[in-house]
Amino acid sequence: MRLAPLLLALALALPAAANHAATRIPDAAIERAAQLREQALASDLGWKITESLTTEVGPRLAGSEADARAVAWAKAKFEQLGYDKVWTEPVTFPKWVRRSEHAEVLGTHAQSLLLTALGGSPGGTVEGEVVRFADLDALKAAPDGSLVGKIAFVDYRMKKQRDGGDYRNGGGIRGRGPSVAIHKGAAAFLMRSAGTDSSRAPHTGNTRFEDGLEPIPSAALSMVDADQLARLAALGPTRVRVALDCGWDGKYTSQNVIGEITGSTRPDEIVLIGGHLDSWDHGTGAIDDAAGIGITMATGALLKPLKPKRTIRVVAFANEEQGLHGGFAYRDAHAKDVAKHVIAAESDFGAGRIYGFDSSARASEKAAFEQIAASLAPLGIETMPGQGDPESDIGPLTERGMAWAWLGHDGTDYFDLHHNAEDTLDKIEPKALAQNVAAYAVFTWLAAQADGGFGSAPKAAGATR
Amino acid sequence: MRLAPLLLALALALPAAANHAATRIPDAAIERAAQLREQALASDLGWKITESLTTEVGPRLAGSEADARAVAWAKAKFEQLGYDKVWTEPVTFPKWVRRSEHAEVLGTHAQSLLLTALGGSPGGTVEGEVVRFADLDALKAAPDGSLVGKIAFVDYRMKKQRDGGDYRNGGGIRGRGPSVAIHKGAAAFLMRSAGTDSSRAPHTGNTRFEDGLEPIPSAALSMVDADQLARLAALGPTRVRVALDCGWDGKYTSQNVIGEITGSTRPDEIVLIGGHLDSWDHGTGAIDDAAGIGITMATGALLKPLKPKRTIRVVAFANEEQGLHGGFAYRDAHAKDVAKHVIAAESDFGAGRIYGFDSSARASEKAAFEQIAASLAPLGIETMPGQGDPESDIGPLTERGMAWAWLGHDGTDYFDLHHNAEDTLDKIEPKALAQNVAAYAVFTWLAAQADGGFGSAPKAAGATR
Repeated sequence: MRLAPLLLALALALPAAANHAATRIPDAAIERAAQLREQALASDLGWKITESLTTEVGPRLAGSEADARAVAWAKAKFEQLGYDKVWTEPVTFPKWVRRSEHAEVLGTHAQSLLLTALGGSPGGTVEGEVVRFADLDALKAAPDGSLVGKIAFVDYRMKKQRDGGDYRNGGGIRGRGPSVAIHKGAAAFLMRSAGTDSSRAPHTGNTRFEDGLEPIPSAALSMVDADQLARLAALGPTRVRVALDCGWDGKYTSQNVIGEITGSTRPDEIVLIGGHLDSWDHGTGAIDDAAGIGITMATGALLKPLKPKRTIRVVAFANEEQGLHGGFAYRDAHAKDVAKHVIAAESDFGAGRIYGFDSSARASEKAAFEQIAASLAPLGIETMPGQGDPESDIGPLTERGMAWAWLGHDGTDYFDLHHNAEDTLDKIEPKALAQNVAAYAVFTWLAAQADGGFGSAPKAAGATR
Repeated sequence: MRLAPLLLALALALPAAANHAATRIPDAAIERAAQLREQALASDLGWKITESLTTEVGPRLAGSEADARAVAWAKAKFEQLGYDKVWTEPVTFPKWVRRSEHAEVLGTHAQSLLLTALGGSPGGTVEGEVVRFADLDALKAAPDGSLVGKIAFVDYRMKKQRDGGDYRNGGGIRGRGPSVAIHKGAAAFLMRSAGTDSSRAPHTGNTRFEDGLEPIPSAALSMVDADQLARLAALGPTRVRVALDCGWDGKYTSQNVIGEITGSTRPDEIVLIGGHLDSWDHGTGAIDDAAGIGITMATGALLKPLKPKRTIRVVAFANEEQGLHGGFAYRDAHAKDVAKHVIAAESDFGAGRIYGFDSSARASEKAAFEQIAASLAPLGIETMPGQGDPESDIGPLTERGMAWAWLGHDGTDYFDLHHNAEDTLDKIEPKALAQNVAAYAVFTWLAAQADGGFGSAPKAAGATR
């Protein structure tokens, strides 16, 4: 997941459209939604799909051998679930590989440290004295050249929050920290993992180096190892060896895998939901994002017998983790069809209970927005105007004018598990996952049955890749 | 820690001695104990020592380079704390080394599994179909020869208990499972870790092969990886590759490190307390057993200004983990001095709050036992006759007649962390550790001031190494 699109998305939120009949959801659809909600709460289909992906495919780093198995799994699963159409669309990206990673304190306090290379890091072995910084601003304040031959260590501890908002800081350090460290002359970059746990499992995730800089080995320490390195550095000068074997290795073409339940009366109008199929490599990507795949695949399957008016399109996006590659490919392939995408919602923030609902259409289609909100309320979901965003892969097409909805998961524990080895099936609460499916099923059904749209309309390309 | 000595120790508990004056603790000592208790609760000395060992030495596998650093650390720490005498006594044992360990599911569900070699396992690479057994009895029930070319997988899930009692099953599988598997023809042995967590950190620990058997690679899967392997095995035949690089590598001589506060009026009578200095290699051995070192070293230091009548001897035992080597060496060096050891207590069950008190002397010295129990009660400690044992390293000398006391830690969470990478300082609650120190300080002080002994008397060697 990423939260970066939030501000952008809010800035792009569509103004209330003038001169059109207000969208309304028929009473019969509202009544049917109540039954659907209870049916979904009692169903373990979302769990079964999530279990299948995390067990049978396991970790599925974009570009790895498991990426292709995940694509095959998704096609087969859509077919097995009775989707009317199943196809794939190519997504090409540079392939990054992780081979090994080690670090150790040298000298009188010799000991190993557990860390993991950041996605996009080059390999290399560096020995140097560690210089600790409390946060990214402290690193930025270091004089240029002051870290020559040294290892920068940014020791920011992310705060636990329901909306995961402090990922702005944690993820920001991961994304920009290495480049800042290079400007200061550092030979390697270490950070406390962008996480909220207290474990030995370091959190990986993508970084990017500014153009023109020579990339340096960049890695995240587990929370416990960051504690340990901070204590050691406080005792006196501390030298560390960081040895990463990883890096770019050509290009790879994966696939967005798409399944549709064809609309009974408006087959050309699409309600899009989805999650991303890839994961990082340490865990089995249960909360990030097998759960999103399970929730949305189950939603389509639960809706099929109801013969929704509009087409339900479920997209299992390729390679979200290394830069929304699947989302950009989908945008490029479907940019001309923005108006056909009536509304979209993505589940890419775990499997905590959904607590909030928002949409780009909250102002322009207030009545329908409130109808959906009322049907979600029995699930403990509040309307939270201005709090939502289109999450990850659907972001690129929302920037071109596609309406979006947000069904916000409780992310209090999300960053305990995000991108680390602990992101596994056992961490998902089956009842919470069923609540997630119920929320998606209710939303998707009502959006498919609505008389009128939610404001999707093509916009000129603004912020691009 | 080990619980195995419990039944033996109870069987050996000394009968009520006849014809001696009952041991009593003077009122002034009881009053002083109340002040000491409050002083210890307010002190962070136990924490500081524990932090120092886990930070400055880190993991300290017996026989590793860090073993020697731990010995040097302990000597220096005793001296820094003002102990009157500090010395070492040699402990020689076979050295076991871990170099690398990997496992992976082969075929259509290819993925890595996190595991760790059991101490004493040979190295080797084995590929074979996994055969799952629910517990050790199920493995025992397999026909001899039925596992030829296969990998035995014992999938027993330890129960969380305050007294850690289900370690009998978990530890039993670890100790005896590999030999049982060899009898059935297995090429390798896997087990669900003897732990109670739900993490990716596998738990190591010692195993032993029966004489005459050809050892096979033997390892423990993390709890999550055991879940995964069980799910995969339920889907159909599952082949796994296990690759361990580890094994025996000559002999090593470490040291028991001993510090004494010399008794003011009975210097030849010893109250012995201690913990073990070594740890397994994945974590920094915070609960197992830096805490025991911190608790008992702090106890001696807190008692020194009180000029206890008897000598307080604190022992940091070498290589407990691989077979009580320090405890046996101590017994062999001091077997002739059993009677001088008035009573002993070891802290080797973590740093949870101490909830129970017991002693081999509870019947023979009922009055003094009850005096100590009354002084411990304000710490929330109950008298639990028949529930205690002499824990680990002091076991060999208690079997020769040394009286023991048991200050039982709440071990509910102990097996979440025991022998895995998560056994680190942050998992210790400072206030609980201070309570531990208070309990040890009160007990040790009262035992040192008692008029009369606790029943230590030489016994013929019974159960030996």
